[in-house]
Amino acid sequence: MKQITNKIEGGVCAPKGFRACGVHCGIRKNKIKKDLALIVADKPCAVACVYTTNLVKGAPISVTQKHVADGIAQAVIVNSGNANTCNADGVEIAEGMCDLVERHTGIPAQNVVVASTGVIGQKLSLDPIASGMDELVKSLGNNSSAAAEAIMTTDTVKKEIAFEFSLGGKVCRIGAICKGVGMICPNMATMLMFITTDAAISSAMLQRAISADVKDSLNMLSVDRDTSTNDTLCIMASGLAGNREIVSANADYRIFKSALHAVTSALCRMLAADGEGATKLLECKVTGAKSKKDARLAAKSVIDSPLFKAAMFGKDANWGRVLCALGYSGANLAVEKIGVAFRSAAGETVVCERGSGVDFSEEQAKKVLSEKEIVIDVQLNDGEFEATAWGCDLTYDYVKINGDYRT
Amino acid sequence: MKQITNKIEGGVCAPKGFRACGVHCGIRKNKIKKDLALIVADKPCAVACVYTTNLVKGAPISVTQKHVADGIAQAVIVNSGNANTCNADGVEIAEGMCDLVERHTGIPAQNVVVASTGVIGQKLSLDPIASGMDELVKSLGNNSSAAAEAIMTTDTVKKEIAFEFSLGGKVCRIGAICKGVGMICPNMATMLMFITTDAAISSAMLQRAISADVKDSLNMLSVDRDTSTNDTLCIMASGLAGNREIVSANADYRIFKSALHAVTSALCRMLAADGEGATKLLECKVTGAKSKKDARLAAKSVIDSPLFKAAMFGKDANWGRVLCALGYSGANLAVEKIGVAFRSAAGETVVCERGSGVDFSEEQAKKVLSEKEIVIDVQLNDGEFEATAWGCDLTYDYVKINGDYRT
Repeated sequence: MKQITNKIEGGVCAPKGFRACGVHCGIRKNKIKKDLALIVADKPCAVACVYTTNLVKGAPISVTQKHVADGIAQAVIVNSGNANTCNADGVEIAEGMCDLVERHTGIPAQNVVVASTGVIGQKLSLDPIASGMDELVKSLGNNSSAAAEAIMTTDTVKKEIAFEFSLGGKVCRIGAICKGVGMICPNMATMLMFITTDAAISSAMLQRAISADVKDSLNMLSVDRDTSTNDTLCIMASGLAGNREIVSANADYRIFKSALHAVTSALCRMLAADGEGATKLLECKVTGAKSKKDARLAAKSVIDSPLFKAAMFGKDANWGRVLCALGYSGANLAVEKIGVAFRSAAGETVVCERGSGVDFSEEQAKKVLSEKEIVIDVQLNDGEFEATAWGCDLTYDYVKINGDYRT
Repeated sequence: MKQITNKIEGGVCAPKGFRACGVHCGIRKNKIKKDLALIVADKPCAVACVYTTNLVKGAPISVTQKHVADGIAQAVIVNSGNANTCNADGVEIAEGMCDLVERHTGIPAQNVVVASTGVIGQKLSLDPIASGMDELVKSLGNNSSAAAEAIMTTDTVKKEIAFEFSLGGKVCRIGAICKGVGMICPNMATMLMFITTDAAISSAMLQRAISADVKDSLNMLSVDRDTSTNDTLCIMASGLAGNREIVSANADYRIFKSALHAVTSALCRMLAADGEGATKLLECKVTGAKSKKDARLAAKSVIDSPLFKAAMFGKDANWGRVLCALGYSGANLAVEKIGVAFRSAAGETVVCERGSGVDFSEEQAKKVLSEKEIVIDVQLNDGEFEATAWGCDLTYDYVKINGDYRT
């Protein structure tokens, strides 16, 4: 879609009316690593969120839910290094973080979104956060990158993106930052992702747009099938682009949704490529499914299989594991119709047709699988629906990172 | 239960009326590794099987299903090194294996159970099997161990067990061999497990017994959440113990079920301990659940979490990952009531009470987690039901083994 192809700089600060920053306040011992981020809007925004479906929820989620119940928010405060989850005083601490924002910016605490990410079950002290607020607020500006850095945990690269699109002749912008990269199997939401836009859109339509979008973006991403306790996706719309406010599912809404999906799907690819320990981005494209649900189940199952993920790490065209994962995916499919090919910048290798193996060059397959981005092309040949899922390979480093995460 | 505590030697040959053996026939290039096993009964037996729920099923499964439809079987032939799955001529080859048994033993092919395990999607030739049959049949005898060896794939230890129990004053025996140890997340069945008994029991009651038993044994086992294409559990009863045939769910049936569970749960522990790359057996005991289903979901979710499995490899008491896995398990539970402790031969460390962390000695926890068998004790404090699940840690070796399995 023409309107959304303009990739621009600036992350969450690209849309009009948003400032951001990130600092090291001392939650982490490592002073080089920023651990506190703030995003502030010039005026109250329409807001919508989706959260983890995990029954064990981080305390910040319950505070955020209360604060966004009226569809309005003006700031986001986020710390890394501690998830503030399974702590008896968690809600108190999360509310304390919002109070600190009010004290330092004048934005009412009930308009503040709060999120935390890091170790579960370790007490989070307000002290470092309180002592970092002055510097944090002073640094507010066109600093999306600093905010993106401050929310990183085991991420090796910061993740931000922005696009321009047009609504009724008005140029609108949408930008985002997010973090992964372990405990990633979002279910109705994901890790932490914060999106801003200057498009005018009601909070009800904003909610509708992200609730629909996650089904084909964040819910199709998995690093390790571990659905986190703190997954939060939050989008704020300032309306400063000057477009006619979107209040129904009209043509402008569809354009907005395309722009939103451009942001979320690009971030899914970044999150998968930076999955804990990952050396490869895996993209499973399923076509020819009987229904959208079958397509999604099939694609997600392939990128979730630890056996297949380990084979990809080893550049081993062990396509039997793709068939196996399709077979237990729960998708309605006809095994005898399935075709599978591996594709990358180095070419394509067809490995399975009509549910059975075909002769292929192991040497050529190895070349295809030696690239950093691998597409697993699954043709179910049984209908008209398709879906894409993103994941990564399973490596020694995943085990290393998670064998001793707390120390 | 007193009747079943007598552990005995002999594996599948412990019950009266069974002989077994295993040889190297040439499916595998490595001549030291046996790759073909045979179990033969002196007379036709009552038989019952459960199979994988994977839609992609090994060809041997469809042949076995046909052969046991009448509730009668007299022999089992199994090869390792090739799963005979996703091969266009797979059924023909599996039938050919049964025909070879008929030709060499006189047992009708339609009374033969056939199973294969190994790589998926590579053609299996009958030639090495045909050439190995003479030696195989000649070696038939009290050779359960050789059969257990011949069905191993990435298993590092052979798995066999046998117990004595008593029915109406008659001593009965039940024995088994099985193999794992990757692509292990049985769903209504598991990898390959062959059980023999000399108890007299109808095939209908035999089916009822194993279908019920797997819910608390094989279905509570997971190495990597990958449900295999070839999972087969087969039990044959010769009736030679002389007990009154079990044809209803009477007291004898309940004793038989206890003996059966002694076999299957012991093998589950062996399979988990030998999971691909495993250094530790993990046993998650969930108590105080609202229902049996909730207990099973909760226990299975913990031993399935790759993050938690990696933490156990690192001897890291990262109990937040236990809470996280409980939270997304799908079990109905009250987070604020949950207690968690780690237990082993080195003692016990309580890490969580009422859903929140408690102070504990990291040093003591490290000692507890340095043992080879770790119990994760989860008290839901919300009901009367309990369940146990078995798994293993996630290690560098799992990645190594599966990064290059085919070559």
